Amino acid sequence: MAAAIALSRRGRGLSTPNPNVGCLIVHDGRVVGRGWTQKGGRPHAEAQALDQAMEQARGATAYVTLEPCFHLSPRGPRCADLLSRAGVARVVIALRDPDPRTNGQGAAWLRDRGVAVDMGLMADEAAAAMAGFVLRQTLGRPHVTLKLGLSLDGRIALANGASRWITGPQARAHAHLERARHDAILVGGGTLRADAPRLDVRLPGLADRTPRRLLLTRGSTPDGWDRVGAPGAIAALDRVDHLLVEGGAGAAAAFLHADLVDRLLLYRAPILIGDGLAGIGDIGLGDLAQAHGRWRLTDDRTLGVDRLEVYERVRSA
Amino acid sequence: MAAAIALSRRGRGLSTPNPNVGCLIVHDGRVVGRGWTQKGGRPHAEAQALDQAMEQARGATAYVTLEPCFHLSPRGPRCADLLSRAGVARVVIALRDPDPRTNGQGAAWLRDRGVAVDMGLMADEAAAAMAGFVLRQTLGRPHVTLKLGLSLDGRIALANGASRWITGPQARAHAHLERARHDAILVGGGTLRADAPRLDVRLPGLADRTPRRLLLTRGSTPDGWDRVGAPGAIAALDRVDHLLVEGGAGAAAAFLHADLVDRLLLYRAPILIGDGLAGIGDIGLGDLAQAHGRWRLTDDRTLGVDRLEVYERVRSA
Repeated sequence: MAAAIALSRRGRGLSTPNPNVGCLIVHDGRVVGRGWTQKGGRPHAEAQALDQAMEQARGATAYVTLEPCFHLSPRGPRCADLLSRAGVARVVIALRDPDPRTNGQGAAWLRDRGVAVDMGLMADEAAAAMAGFVLRQTLGRPHVTLKLGLSLDGRIALANGASRWITGPQARAHAHLERARHDAILVGGGTLRADAPRLDVRLPGLADRTPRRLLLTRGSTPDGWDRVGAPGAIAALDRVDHLLVEGGAGAAAAFLHADLVDRLLLYRAPILIGDGLAGIGDIGLGDLAQAHGRWRLTDDRTLGVDRLEVYERVRSA
Repeated sequence: MAAAIALSRRGRGLSTPNPNVGCLIVHDGRVVGRGWTQKGGRPHAEAQALDQAMEQARGATAYVTLEPCFHLSPRGPRCADLLSRAGVARVVIALRDPDPRTNGQGAAWLRDRGVAVDMGLMADEAAAAMAGFVLRQTLGRPHVTLKLGLSLDGRIALANGASRWITGPQARAHAHLERARHDAILVGGGTLRADAPRLDVRLPGLADRTPRRLLLTRGSTPDGWDRVGAPGAIAALDRVDHLLVEGGAGAAAAFLHADLVDRLLLYRAPILIGDGLAGIGDIGLGDLAQAHGRWRLTDDRTLGVDRLEVYERVRSA
C-alpha cells in the first residue's frame, strides 16, 4: 500500500477533477501493474494498472488508495466493474470514497462478485497523499499550502524589497517541484507588482506542469491571471484541489487569519537580515496561548545550505 | 581526547580567569584519572586528574586539551612539572597554548625530561570547547553567543510585547543550562524595562552557577548589574570569557552590526505570530549577498515540541 500511495502522489496537481489515486497489482509476490490517475482525471489508476497487468490480473491482489469508483460516467468505465471483470481475487483499499455516488458501493459490488475486499489499510497516509480531494469532499474547499522562503530571523526580503536570493538553488528547485504538485498558485497584489513572478515550473521535463495563476485582489487582474476576491472564495474554484500560496505577507496573513492554511513549507536560509520585510502580516492573534498546538512538524530536510521544514495544521476531528 | 574535551566543557563559564581545560589519564587501557579546571581556575585539570591517578600515573598516558602550563604562578604548581614528576610516560595535547608564557615551552620541558609528547590531536574540537579562552588570546575579547526564542516566522513577542511563553519548558530548561555555561549574560535596556529578567539559573543543583548580569546602556544601571556602554567594550571585561546575549532586538542588532557574535542559539517554537516584535533590529545589511556564507549549522535538536538550532560564525583564518 505504501507503494500505491507513492504512485498516487505522482498525480497530485494533475488529476483534477478526479482524485489522485494510486494502484498496484501484485500476482504471486510480483508487481504486475502500476497506475495513477492521469492528467485531467483519465484513465483512472486501476484502469492503467490493469492495462499493464493484462492476463496476470486474474487471481491477483490489487492495492488501491481509494475505493474503486462505482458510479457511471460518460468519461470512462467504472473501476469496480473493471477489477471484477479482470478476475482480480482480492482488492485492498486504503480509504473509503466519501463521494456519495460510490461511498461503500464499490466495495459492495466487488464482494457481491466474489472478490475479497479489505478496507482501511494505511487510510491516514492515503488521505494525506490525496489531501486536496479529501478536503474538497469534507470541507468543500481545496487543500492550501503556504510557502515561505525565510532568513533565520524570519525575513523574506531586505527593507528595500530585495529578495533575490535568500535561499539557494537546491531549495528553489524543490519549490518548483512543489509548484508542479499543485493545481494553482496564488499571490497577492503587492507581490505581483513588486516581483512580477512567472510562477512557472522551471525544471527539466516539468515545464508543462505549470499551474494556473491566481491573484488575491479586490481589483482587476492582468492577462493570464484569475481573480480571487477573498480567501474564502477558493471554495468556488473549479478544478483546484491543491492550492499553493506563495506570498507576500498580506496574502499569507489573509489565509492564516481565515484559518485556511493546511500545510506550511518553510525554506530557511542560514542568513540573518535584521530589519527587513516579514513573511506574515497581521493574523489576528490576540494571545500567545491561541498560537500553540496548531502546527506539527511532518518533514525536515537539508537542501544545500538551506533547511526545509514542513508543518501541517492540527485539526481535531 | 574526545573524553578529555567533554570534561573540559564542564568548566565552561566557571574556570575564568583560567581556560576550561580537560584532562584524562589512561594506564594500560584503563582510565585512572579525570579532571577539569575548577571554579575560579584552580586546581588545574591536570592536577585534579593526577590526584585521582596517584601511583598509577607512573608510565601512563595523559590526554590534555591544552598544552600544560609552564609559567610559575603564586596560585599553584606548573602542570608540565607536575606531569613529569608523576612519571607520566606520554602526554597527548590537543591545542598548543597561545599564552606567550607557555606557548611550546610546556611541551619542550616535558620532552627534555624524557616524556613523549604529541601535539595537535583534535585541535579544532578542543578550540571550540575552549572558544572563550582562544578568542581572548587571539582577538582579545570574549566568545559571544546570541540566544533567541522565536516563532516559526521569527517573532519574539506579540505586538503588545507579550512573550510568555513562546517556547516550552524543555527549551527554557536548556536555555538555563546554557546560562550556567557562561560567565556573564547581557541584555539591553528595553528588555530590562519590559521584562525585568532575573537571568538566574533555575535548574536543580545549578542555582549557584548564575552568571554576572550586564546591561547594554549609555545610561546608569540598577543594583546588581554592570554597565556595558557599547558592544566593543566587552573586550575590557574582567573574568568574562563566555558572554551570552539574551536580547532584545536592539542588543542583538548592536552585537551583530559590530560582528561580535560567534554563535547563535535559536530556540524555535512551532507557532506563527504574524505582526509582532522581531528578534533582531537593524544590522546594517545593504545587500543580500553579504548575508551569505557567514553561519554554519553545528547542532540541531528537538526539545519538546520546539527545535534548537545552533549556528557558528564562519571566519576565514
